[in-house]
Amino acid sequence: MRLRIECAYDGTDFHGWATQPGLRTVQEVLDHALATVLRVDSVATVVAGRTDAGVHARGQVVHADVGDVPPQLLRRLNGVLPPDVRVLAVGEAPAGFDARFSALWRRYAYRIADDAALVDPLTRRHVLVWSRPLDLDAMNDAAQALVGRQDFAAFCRRREGATTIRTLLDLTWSRSPEGLAEATVRADAFCHSMVRALVGCLLAVGDGRRPPSWPAEILRAEARDPSVTVAHAHGLTLEEVAYPPDDELAARATTTRARRDG
Amino acid sequence: MRLRIECAYDGTDFHGWATQPGLRTVQEVLDHALATVLRVDSVATVVAGRTDAGVHARGQVVHADVGDVPPQLLRRLNGVLPPDVRVLAVGEAPAGFDARFSALWRRYAYRIADDAALVDPLTRRHVLVWSRPLDLDAMNDAAQALVGRQDFAAFCRRREGATTIRTLLDLTWSRSPEGLAEATVRADAFCHSMVRALVGCLLAVGDGRRPPSWPAEILRAEARDPSVTVAHAHGLTLEEVAYPPDDELAARATTTRARRDG
Repeated sequence: MRLRIECAYDGTDFHGWATQPGLRTVQEVLDHALATVLRVDSVATVVAGRTDAGVHARGQVVHADVGDVPPQLLRRLNGVLPPDVRVLAVGEAPAGFDARFSALWRRYAYRIADDAALVDPLTRRHVLVWSRPLDLDAMNDAAQALVGRQDFAAFCRRREGATTIRTLLDLTWSRSPEGLAEATVRADAFCHSMVRALVGCLLAVGDGRRPPSWPAEILRAEARDPSVTVAHAHGLTLEEVAYPPDDELAARATTTRARRDG
Repeated sequence: MRLRIECAYDGTDFHGWATQPGLRTVQEVLDHALATVLRVDSVATVVAGRTDAGVHARGQVVHADVGDVPPQLLRRLNGVLPPDVRVLAVGEAPAGFDARFSALWRRYAYRIADDAALVDPLTRRHVLVWSRPLDLDAMNDAAQALVGRQDFAAFCRRREGATTIRTLLDLTWSRSPEGLAEATVRADAFCHSMVRALVGCLLAVGDGRRPPSWPAEILRAEARDPSVTVAHAHGLTLEEVAYPPDDELAARATTTRARRDG
């Protein structure tokens, strides 16, 4: 049977999601907890969003193919997991479900305290401190030109043979109730470091170093520009992964696979 | 001149506010930062709310009597302070201001995730995890009987010669936008461990171990009851300290001093 697992983690003390020999990663910790609770040698998870080192998640989704499942799996997993990883929900996945390829979109948040009075030591692990005030109107103006189906090569770390075309569904800035600057960034999928490069580019607009037209120019160049600074990982949190209705899961996975390979 | 300092801290790695030999406390860290930036041997701070070990603060207020003050004091202090303490604002205090005795009231928040789906590793240092769902209506019913000017001896750690009479202005539970159970607890002042004892008592009502009438019975006994469990420190945050208008600061300090001593 296939398990669908929703989980959250504080990425501070992890070298990102994906297992790497000798490093503490979320995948390694979760796979190990699953193997322990299921009393098997190993379990291999597939994740919706491969977060980088230092990036957090609230609504990460994972699947794993397993044999027999004991009762109270949620409680048992959280009993074994360290406090910086929590399973929020676990159950049998619907037919055709693939955590990675069935996903319709991923939504990330990037949070910034751009005023000394907003800095909160309790949130310092997931909120970036920025010493200059940000003009969110200018950042929203600039962001509009980036939304849509585009080649994001300028904002992606190149990988041989992989496409950098993505559909950016949302890129908006707003003030949280506490006054933080918060970006909502939603796309069908993201290439490596794309959200942080987009945020870094818009920060230059927000504090007045670049005009609002600059991010669109960068995008059109379709090549990585050294003047775009990738924003720090710790301000970034994967908030949500969305899937189609159950009867469309398998078809969605097939379509996505074909597009990524092509 | 007297400085008025507003500060915030993550209490996790501190043995509370007050300086204790050999232990890391917020006061020791802040006094040391002030002395460093002001280039003096020592600075003695007076605080509005003496928080216990593990308790956090967002709106803590402090005063300190100092000599010459360099420009950009806020930035300099935060440059010297460790990341778990931040100064939010600093400036010359109005005449008659005393961080402790001029205060009208202190407001604390106590935050609880009472459902597995609410548990967030990013907030685990300041949100208590409770394994049973809480009935906030029952907790609010029970809390009503505690509000007002009362002898809170049943909820205080005894100190010889000190009064345990306090005016509890607010004690209400509500759901945060994320769904957390949040208590707002506001009083003219609190005696030692009072907020956590009140919360611990109401938790027994909230998860059905005690009837809503129980906290009022405890209060009337006017003696510490071993069946009241003091709630864990890490769910508690000092959120705000309120002061009267500037022209009433000195009079308020005089009144408070007389009452505490009496």
